[in-house]
Amino acid sequence: MFKIMLENVRKNCPLIHNITNYVTVNDCANVVLACGASPIMADDMEEVEEITTICSGLNINIGTLNQRTIESMLLAGKKANELIHPVVLDPVGAGASNLRTNTAKKLLDEVKFSVIRGNISEIKTLASGNGTTKGVDADVADKVTEENLDDVVAFAKAFARKMGVVVAITGAIDIVANEEKAYCIRNGHPMMASITGTGCQLSAMTTAFVTANPEYLLEATAAAVCTMGYAGEIAYERLNEMDGNSSYRNYIIDAIYNMTPEMLDKGAKYEVR
Amino acid sequence: MFKIMLENVRKNCPLIHNITNYVTVNDCANVVLACGASPIMADDMEEVEEITTICSGLNINIGTLNQRTIESMLLAGKKANELIHPVVLDPVGAGASNLRTNTAKKLLDEVKFSVIRGNISEIKTLASGNGTTKGVDADVADKVTEENLDDVVAFAKAFARKMGVVVAITGAIDIVANEEKAYCIRNGHPMMASITGTGCQLSAMTTAFVTANPEYLLEATAAAVCTMGYAGEIAYERLNEMDGNSSYRNYIIDAIYNMTPEMLDKGAKYEVR
Amino acid sequence: MFKIMLENVRKNCPLIHNITNYVTVNDCANVVLACGASPIMADDMEEVEEITTICSGLNINIGTLNQRTIESMLLAGKKANELIHPVVLDPVGAGASNLRTNTAKKLLDEVKFSVIRGNISEIKTLASGNGTTKGVDADVADKVTEENLDDVVAFAKAFARKMGVVVAITGAIDIVANEEKAYCIRNGHPMMASITGTGCQLSAMTTAFVTANPEYLLEATAAAVCTMGYAGEIAYERLNEMDGNSSYRNYIIDAIYNMTPEMLDKGAKYEVR
Repeated sequence: MFKIMLENVRKNCPLIHNITNYVTVNDCANVVLACGASPIMADDMEEVEEITTICSGLNINIGTLNQRTIESMLLAGKKANELIHPVVLDPVGAGASNLRTNTAKKLLDEVKFSVIRGNISEIKTLASGNGTTKGVDADVADKVTEENLDDVVAFAKAFARKMGVVVAITGAIDIVANEEKAYCIRNGHPMMASITGTGCQLSAMTTAFVTANPEYLLEATAAAVCTMGYAGEIAYERLNEMDGNSSYRNYIIDAIYNMTPEMLDKGAKYEVR
Repeated sequence: MFKIMLENVRKNCPLIHNITNYVTVNDCANVVLACGASPIMADDMEEVEEITTICSGLNINIGTLNQRTIESMLLAGKKANELIHPVVLDPVGAGASNLRTNTAKKLLDEVKFSVIRGNISEIKTLASGNGTTKGVDADVADKVTEENLDDVVAFAKAFARKMGVVVAITGAIDIVANEEKAYCIRNGHPMMASITGTGCQLSAMTTAFVTANPEYLLEATAAAVCTMGYAGEIAYERLNEMDGNSSYRNYIIDAIYNMTPEMLDKGAKYEVR
Repeated sequence: MFKIMLENVRKNCPLIHNITNYVTVNDCANVVLACGASPIMADDMEEVEEITTICSGLNINIGTLNQRTIESMLLAGKKANELIHPVVLDPVGAGASNLRTNTAKKLLDEVKFSVIRGNISEIKTLASGNGTTKGVDADVADKVTEENLDDVVAFAKAFARKMGVVVAITGAIDIVANEEKAYCIRNGHPMMASITGTGCQLSAMTTAFVTANPEYLLEATAAAVCTMGYAGEIAYERLNEMDGNSSYRNYIIDAIYNMTPEMLDKGAKYEVR
């Protein structure tokens, strides 16, 4: 199943509009290209609706947001809704400042999202209206473990039902859920936390996957999460003793570029709960 | 001839002012350094004229433009004209939104450019006043082929004459033309399209080349285009089976860093039409 | 001694707030992660005080500054002072435009900095109120050499006394001084000048070091400078004949990631004057 998701990205080569932070934007663009789609970045309110219109999917990432770009996110999101394009939200740092928490809430009020991807602390913030995000990383107290996995799955399904979205909660164990079904994914490697922006990259790639597979939001999101995690494993295997986080970053994107649908099907490690 | 163009970049080490997008700005800076020049990025209207003044050349790239930076582009461009510094325009995404198309037109009305570098769809948009750019990539319908090459050369020369510039139309075949003479360049590799920003990087490097060779705008631009394309070939040869677009990006910049004038002269593949 | 500085970064994993330029921001984030700390970037005036509050240290870098971010730098700096968090200033391009010179001065007037790190031309600009910075690189006339080293050490100590800071003047020879003591550091490699942003990266890493060692500002800053320079040496040794400045950039960050406290103690090359 995941195999077909990736095949469709490569076949359709969807054009993805990204309104995203300036920290990881270059990696996001290269990851979108690596998986077989095509990126465009544009954030001025005078052009975002037109850019959304020529694209097939929209990725909104609130890292390094500002008053100007928040307005653009709202305009682009509404336009994408009008056109029935998939829209992905990455609530980077929700819970770390009122501006981020309130912007995420406002986006959720005014835009219908297809997928929300964040760490557990960010998603809890969206669910409860306030949070304890440690900067842009998840709070240790929120950590998903084998012990609390069933509880987090139930939380994810309830959140997905309430918001009418697919939710992807990523961390050591990733949970991708709609209201009925949850994929618990065990791909990835701890060293991925030593690179800035693997979450942002995943959100951009998820947008490509759901845009190429609009009828299969849950499976397409899970396939994107497995692709990222499995690429993290392949890249880790490739490291030599001199390599560190910078080479690892390159190797992960390389692994996505070289990922075949067959490899993905074999490498994906998940169970359904 | 191209050999001398690169030698002059290395010898003069010109300081280049870049007003460019936040997606590929780091790569642009590293490419300018790789070819032997020195970059500075500054986009606030309160400082752009001063920064232009201490530099010897200006690169204006309209990707991720906004109201604030558009004003800065105009101020810097006019100041560069006053100082008779070479100015390069990269009309990223002209044709994809009215903001980009109109900004490119306004820049062309108010600033005298030395070189305009874009893909065929962007240049057609500038020539006709409207376009069908597919995001930031060229439209398939516009593609330059061996069959339509003479027509595109004629178009490029006419555009160069009308605008009083050297035009570089880059793609599978690159055309660098002034009103009288066109270099048709067959360096490069299709995989370059899998990296974000090779066009932006080329525009930044072209600015370095024309700034170091102000009397030879046509040849300097053609030399920069050959350098980029040949670096893409060298980098492609270097790829191992695990490498993908991210390592390829690094290898291209590495190849520019290691390019000697002699290598460039040998590796450049072009004909004059 | 330097060994303990790095150990404390790894042990405490401080969260560092960076208000920095969009050219080198991704490298800054990855370097902060490589040394063992955690970065967050935020520059909107509506959130910077909250972000500073959840962090333990603040890095202010004035590259690609604009009216909006200048205001944010001031707000964040004052909040960090209230909370007695270490604050580092990187006066990128001070002397290259009045906006940069005046912003640096205003920051120095309104914010108490722990460390100021820049090249010799930038620091001279701050000391004298005006300068001749060549873009973002030091002016050749200002170059620190074995011949003028004692003079520069005296200048650095006087500047440190006047401003009540630790000053790090980096170049071929690095000087890290407070009013009484100066470390003259001879780590590093000339090829580091062929990469954009090694200075920015060092300022971000310095913030991590001083935040993890607030009682040892001088030693922590010197340890960060040695770490960067020694990483530059290790990365240089690793280069193959095809590698250039882009791979070198990756290798430096990799070397920081793999630097052990023991390696740092062995590799640090300095004398006290």
